[in-house]
Amino acid sequence: MKRKILSLTVLLILFMLMNVFPSYAKDPLPSWNDGEAKRAIIQFVKDVTHKGGPKYVPPEDRIATFDNDGTLWCEMPVIQVLYMGEALKEMAEKRPELKEKPFYQAVMKGNLEYFEQSLETKKELLELLALTHSGMTLEDFRASVAKFFKTARHPKYNALLKETTYLPMVELLKYLRANGFKTFICSGGGIYFMRVITDEIYGIPPEQVIGTAGKLKFEDVDGKISLMRLPSLLTNNDKEGKPTGIALHIGKKPIFAAGNVRSGGDVAMLRYCQSNDYPSLQLMIDHDDDERESAYSEPDNASLNAADKFKWIVVSMKKDWKKIFSFGK
Amino acid sequence: MKRKILSLTVLLILFMLMNVFPSYAKDPLPSWNDGEAKRAIIQFVKDVTHKGGPKYVPPEDRIATFDNDGTLWCEMPVIQVLYMGEALKEMAEKRPELKEKPFYQAVMKGNLEYFEQSLETKKELLELLALTHSGMTLEDFRASVAKFFKTARHPKYNALLKETTYLPMVELLKYLRANGFKTFICSGGGIYFMRVITDEIYGIPPEQVIGTAGKLKFEDVDGKISLMRLPSLLTNNDKEGKPTGIALHIGKKPIFAAGNVRSGGDVAMLRYCQSNDYPSLQLMIDHDDDERESAYSEPDNASLNAADKFKWIVVSMKKDWKKIFSFGK
Repeated sequence: MKRKILSLTVLLILFMLMNVFPSYAKDPLPSWNDGEAKRAIIQFVKDVTHKGGPKYVPPEDRIATFDNDGTLWCEMPVIQVLYMGEALKEMAEKRPELKEKPFYQAVMKGNLEYFEQSLETKKELLELLALTHSGMTLEDFRASVAKFFKTARHPKYNALLKETTYLPMVELLKYLRANGFKTFICSGGGIYFMRVITDEIYGIPPEQVIGTAGKLKFEDVDGKISLMRLPSLLTNNDKEGKPTGIALHIGKKPIFAAGNVRSGGDVAMLRYCQSNDYPSLQLMIDHDDDERESAYSEPDNASLNAADKFKWIVVSMKKDWKKIFSFGK
Repeated sequence: MKRKILSLTVLLILFMLMNVFPSYAKDPLPSWNDGEAKRAIIQFVKDVTHKGGPKYVPPEDRIATFDNDGTLWCEMPVIQVLYMGEALKEMAEKRPELKEKPFYQAVMKGNLEYFEQSLETKKELLELLALTHSGMTLEDFRASVAKFFKTARHPKYNALLKETTYLPMVELLKYLRANGFKTFICSGGGIYFMRVITDEIYGIPPEQVIGTAGKLKFEDVDGKISLMRLPSLLTNNDKEGKPTGIALHIGKKPIFAAGNVRSGGDVAMLRYCQSNDYPSLQLMIDHDDDERESAYSEPDNASLNAADKFKWIVVSMKKDWKKIFSFGK
């Protein structure tokens, strides 16, 4: 009986300790290898949540912004471009003249490099974008994207597209939220496209998603209200458009920002974050794992150069991530 | 002793009842007179929060959008225009040539009707807007607005401008939030102007404020990052721009929307709200209290006509509000 009471007491004390020091109780980032990146993240979160400490940041200012393609889910190939291919195929069934478009065959074969060939073909990507992202109501567009995500699979991995999120980053989002952060996406991707799926896969609601936005038009047809998607852009939420997108949608500077190497698209966002008067942390994800994901850099190395110059944390997918996807490895 | 235990038990039961039925314990809208508007609001909130009930709406979809000028605070005169006058005065000290502007004397005398005189003077209002809302960094603009609100007083009431919020509406915001709603401002006013003060006076953080937005430009001067305000508009968040602003910033339809009579500026927002598949409620505030506030209608009566046609709740400031401001009456 005495022993039973003793062991109950020990359990109780352990339980109390787990609540007082939750970080000892459980690794908040189990898919991260122990290393500089993981340690820096955990130290930063401890610092900014330590009330009375010199680096304390009140909860309402704990804003974290994440790029999406290549930062939260894979971008080889870009998922929104896969959607465009599917949408084009469906459209061509009703409008066979679309099959005469120079890019039609390339899109059908999944040959997305086609659009990188020349200025001419880059313009064709804009045409494909307009075709598949305008001329319908916002509700119809959402329904089409939702249907796409139900079954669309990744061409390389044996997984649904919506499963190709990076497990370590999903853990990081949850960890930050558990510490009073408000997590936002700030991506060059389409704002109305991403919002269909971000709550389900990241726990990020539509109002916390910032992206490139096409113009909308309020319509009233015989008393039926809708918002029509127009074929012109309101914002281009890439590169220097990211800080202005954050100002427009959040109105506060983030104290935490994460982007990735490929196009230099996140450099301005990370610099904006770093200009915060509060302590801040910046992550630059390096795609250096050809075996488990992809290895790619950018022609001018701008992202890694900036990371070096401004002392951002470079996350090596190969070394820092124990597991990349929830499926497989 | 027995009596003491008994009264403790009664207290305990009362306490439990207060927690189970908080609405019986305390009037959530004490500055509202008992009437159709108050009853409709309380019934609506009960319905959408009643889990398992036919009108239940999950918390993440309990979006409420409020116009600002004339709905949450007074608009006679428009507060942002008062700011423009102050800012112009300050600017003219350094740039005396501004005193030669045709509108300078009118603005100094607080004669805002000047801008309503002709197409020409309406254009001058845009010039005043550009003068006072662009050509500086976003941070400098915010500092200037914050300074303004510290001391600026209402020309008619003996109160600071930031105190001229409608007490019944501030109660309504709190009541909705206490019931799981996320409250947003959706106003024709300047987004960066309003955000300086909305958290303090309404408990609405910057990221939940939608308004007319000027364009911004990311600048890097010798390593110093800033966002420069440009003299052109990105969005015009009035009338049919309100539903598109809601789509851009929230990405969900509101189930609750409130606007006011003056220009028809809120009709499209209320119709958009009403097109929600969920149950929804719309309020149209009528400024009919010349004694305690102001009495004004709109030339074509569009707002009240729409309220009648679409069965919105018309809130009479005179009859429905027990008290209008926290100061005085």
